[in-house]
Amino acid sequence: MLSTLIELQRLKRLDRTGWTLRGLPNGTESVAAHSFGVGVTAMLLADKLIASGVSVDVEKVLRIALLHDWAECRVGDMPRTATLYFGSEARKQAETAAFADVVSNLEGPYVDLYDDYERRNSLEAKLVKAADVLDLLVQVLALERAGARGLDEFWEVAEQPDFNLDGNAEQIVQELLQSILKARRELHNHG
Amino acid sequence: MLSTLIELQRLKRLDRTGWTLRGLPNGTESVAAHSFGVGVTAMLLADKLIASGVSVDVEKVLRIALLHDWAECRVGDMPRTATLYFGSEARKQAETAAFADVVSNLEGPYVDLYDDYERRNSLEAKLVKAADVLDLLVQVLALERAGARGLDEFWEVAEQPDFNLDGNAEQIVQELLQSILKARRELHNHG
Amino acid sequence: MLSTLIELQRLKRLDRTGWTLRGLPNGTESVAAHSFGVGVTAMLLADKLIASGVSVDVEKVLRIALLHDWAECRVGDMPRTATLYFGSEARKQAETAAFADVVSNLEGPYVDLYDDYERRNSLEAKLVKAADVLDLLVQVLALERAGARGLDEFWEVAEQPDFNLDGNAEQIVQELLQSILKARRELHNHG
Amino acid sequence: MLSTLIELQRLKRLDRTGWTLRGLPNGTESVAAHSFGVGVTAMLLADKLIASGVSVDVEKVLRIALLHDWAECRVGDMPRTATLYFGSEARKQAETAAFADVVSNLEGPYVDLYDDYERRNSLEAKLVKAADVLDLLVQVLALERAGARGLDEFWEVAEQPDFNLDGNAEQIVQELLQSILKARRELHNHG
Amino acid sequence: MLSTLIELQRLKRLDRTGWTLRGLPNGTESVAAHSFGVGVTAMLLADKLIASGVSVDVEKVLRIALLHDWAECRVGDMPRTATLYFGSEARKQAETAAFADVVSNLEGPYVDLYDDYERRNSLEAKLVKAADVLDLLVQVLALERAGARGLDEFWEVAEQPDFNLDGNAEQIVQELLQSILKARRELHNHG
Amino acid sequence: MLSTLIELQRLKRLDRTGWTLRGLPNGTESVAAHSFGVGVTAMLLADKLIASGVSVDVEKVLRIALLHDWAECRVGDMPRTATLYFGSEARKQAETAAFADVVSNLEGPYVDLYDDYERRNSLEAKLVKAADVLDLLVQVLALERAGARGLDEFWEVAEQPDFNLDGNAEQIVQELLQSILKARRELHNHG
Repeated sequence: MLSTLIELQRLKRLDRTGWTLRGLPNGTESVAAHSFGVGVTAMLLADKLIASGVSVDVEKVLRIALLHDWAECRVGDMPRTATLYFGSEARKQAETAAFADVVSNLEGPYVDLYDDYERRNSLEAKLVKAADVLDLLVQVLALERAGARGLDEFWEVAEQPDFNLDGNAEQIVQELLQSILKARRELHNHG
Repeated sequence: MLSTLIELQRLKRLDRTGWTLRGLPNGTESVAAHSFGVGVTAMLLADKLIASGVSVDVEKVLRIALLHDWAECRVGDMPRTATLYFGSEARKQAETAAFADVVSNLEGPYVDLYDDYERRNSLEAKLVKAADVLDLLVQVLALERAGARGLDEFWEVAEQPDFNLDGNAEQIVQELLQSILKARRELHNHG
Repeated sequence: MLSTLIELQRLKRLDRTGWTLRGLPNGTESVAAHSFGVGVTAMLLADKLIASGVSVDVEKVLRIALLHDWAECRVGDMPRTATLYFGSEARKQAETAAFADVVSNLEGPYVDLYDDYERRNSLEAKLVKAADVLDLLVQVLALERAGARGLDEFWEVAEQPDFNLDGNAEQIVQELLQSILKARRELHNHG
Repeated sequence: MLSTLIELQRLKRLDRTGWTLRGLPNGTESVAAHSFGVGVTAMLLADKLIASGVSVDVEKVLRIALLHDWAECRVGDMPRTATLYFGSEARKQAETAAFADVVSNLEGPYVDLYDDYERRNSLEAKLVKAADVLDLLVQVLALERAGARGLDEFWEVAEQPDFNLDGNAEQIVQELLQSILKARRELHNHG
Repeated sequence: MLSTLIELQRLKRLDRTGWTLRGLPNGTESVAAHSFGVGVTAMLLADKLIASGVSVDVEKVLRIALLHDWAECRVGDMPRTATLYFGSEARKQAETAAFADVVSNLEGPYVDLYDDYERRNSLEAKLVKAADVLDLLVQVLALERAGARGLDEFWEVAEQPDFNLDGNAEQIVQELLQSILKARRELHNHG
Repeated sequence: MLSTLIELQRLKRLDRTGWTLRGLPNGTESVAAHSFGVGVTAMLLADKLIASGVSVDVEKVLRIALLHDWAECRVGDMPRTATLYFGSEARKQAETAAFADVVSNLEGPYVDLYDDYERRNSLEAKLVKAADVLDLLVQVLALERAGARGLDEFWEVAEQPDFNLDGNAEQIVQELLQSILKARRELHNHG
């Protein structure tokens, strides 16, 4: 268990490559800090879903949020463009294999949860994926508020949201997305 | 909800003061990255407890781990010595009030979970506190492996562990602690 | 004396929390660098006061400027919002006690000077406080010139300046404040 | 041409992942800085080879040194462990395709030089690969002199050097390797 | 040879002072990363010249690009304003002497190439100087795209370009310059 | 006055080159932070001298400490080796001229104080120079406690201290130096 914890420490300092490639300073956001953001966003979304009558397994949501990027301590934080060259299938396979090795000396439901996330079958997996995108957009918004520019391509994701959720769940996620987009419009109208 | 998420983004970049005060470079560990580490450690511990027959509410564990440092986006990451001057009671009250304000426009069990954590009544709260200490020690170990020195005072915590757990839970946490201490001894024997 | 100097070294790397919380990179400004800025600003202001016929104890001004943030090596650089939760009285008491401990093995007028600064009775104490605010605003201006945004709340301080000085002293400080505000207006008109 | 230059600017800030994963601070070495180091090392080695009577195309050596990591502006700096999961063949193909796209709007011998480097057929390609390894080891040595630890695995490369050169070329590269290893032994004997 | 390589490693981390003095974060660009950028720019320019029928010694171009800033590991990266106070002649002499010492235990054409660069007699030296300016401007453009401001004075260089080249060479360099200036105008029209 | 303050802000972020050249991370110590350290050290030393019966003009001491590195905002923080190539006389002249320009639109005793410091005639100038050396050594000690290595050459200064003071003043400065050296010996005996 200790060797796994030591390996996962690496995510605390591993920069999210996307910021560096766009000229933002090193240290803008670590993979661990992003995972925290995904966990928090997913928890708040899950609680809203529950309040609106949707049944959500919050334990599963939080487990997936915490572990969904563990493979990066072996594979690194590959930029989006890398997927074009490796193919998304090869990337998925490599990350799945790396994840399996990271948790190989642990007992627990980690591999199953990771597979669930990769396949996006369960509501919980879809919710974490939505939180992954929304935390990214909130981070971009925060960076733009602090003066960063040149991040337009991240907002293109937001134009064709594909959360694949149903009913109340989809609506709640869309409401958060719309409030992020509104905050951005206001920022750039006043800026 | 968006305003809370924007405020919590601040934890992604807020340095843990302890490292800076001991001469380590800025960017060594953010509060968000530490919260991620606590969440991961708590999840792995909880799964070990469950495997040994202890009943644990993992959802509660992960919720507490994710939210236990949210007050720091308003109060900052105060060094240990600060508590000497403010008093631990005043610090607790200030952080509790700050936490309440951070979540004031959210519906959800956040204030109750925070209070539980602060009072350390439940097994889950104690487990997160143990994970808080153990993630710190694993981080110190990782820093020492990379050449950092002058961190001896962190190990003093480890000499008088006060996890306040029972039976299997106490034993599992102690085993992880002992394996960290063993790894450290080996590091310094070979170094 | 050496132990005090070692402890104060910590201020050279301790980030001013305000920048980090607003999304600026770590390393934007250390507490020591700010103290330098306050000392420089206070010296230039004091010399202008003297030239205009006001009698100023420059030694006292510079001593206070150098020592006014020493408590932060034990208490950390608390963000403004922290004061809301601790209360400004508790904060003052804690910092005063921390300061007293930092200088406890030194002989010299340090505690008296710190108390003078905290009470803002003397002209010199008021002048350093003015320099503390003005150095902050010049730093914000320099950051905005380099592209930083989202720092508007710092300028609110400047709208209701409360320097509590008299006659020529007040006028000289106000002139510097006005020239900072003018430079900012020009920046945003052209930017 | 400008779009290529803008894209390659990204390598100036992209951290070499190996350092971050081992707990060294962000900003330890960029991909561009490493490419500079490879170019310098390759030039000095080439000049030694020439002095010893080996015929070397220095233009080709320096071109390969400068361009051998260009694919990383699209694929990122993948850690060694990533190759285990993607397979070295898939990695090579992805990087070759990324390289081709980076230079697609340029006329010049870039694709041929990159292919030569990847296949390591020519003396020049082998020499750059040797410089790639040697610059890494000199960087590790410099970091260890500055106090970094935990970098032992990099030295394992040095134990089974496989430069694939002949005669004088092999000897000259081996001499540099041996002087690096000697400097490291001296460092750790005295340290 | 090893001692030279160790000394030149320093350029990998030495910040280009110009960015720091204008309020950009430490780590914006190292001297080594800039040398890489000059090498790449010079190579692409040289290949365009060759394609247009100009005869260029590319080996010489790349050698000069790699070595033109080596003196900085002893003299530092002096800001432009420093030249005003030392005089450009004294600066040149100091850098030439530092360069000679850096390469004093190497055999090779380094001193001659450096002298050629300093005198700007050959086409190759002029081409590297042009690449030095153009890489700077592309870096400024990239920083401005990421939100940096306050860098106008760098563009003044671009208004009175003095590349001192002839015919096709001058035209090709001017075309790149004009495309950079056009990209900047577009950035600020849309921004 | 504002333009001077804006220019001096640059010292808050300008790295002391010595650390970078020895492989320590960017952001280790700014020129402004060092000036703060010199001011603090000089103040504590001055108070000890006064307590031992030596008459010291503390205002002058603190003024010189704050302003002695202002020229660096135009000339940069030149490494020691730079002086070998420029000559210490040329360096002094350049820095004196740069200093004069920095303060050219200020009224006050700055140029005279700077000249006094450069000539080291007065007790106060000598005391600041001693504080300049001692703050450097305390910084090195703090860095070595945090794990930094490769800083031995800084300690050579300490072996042949040349403070040029008399009687009690010399003794008090020597006592601080000796306590620094003792702390370093203890560090390396235990480390």
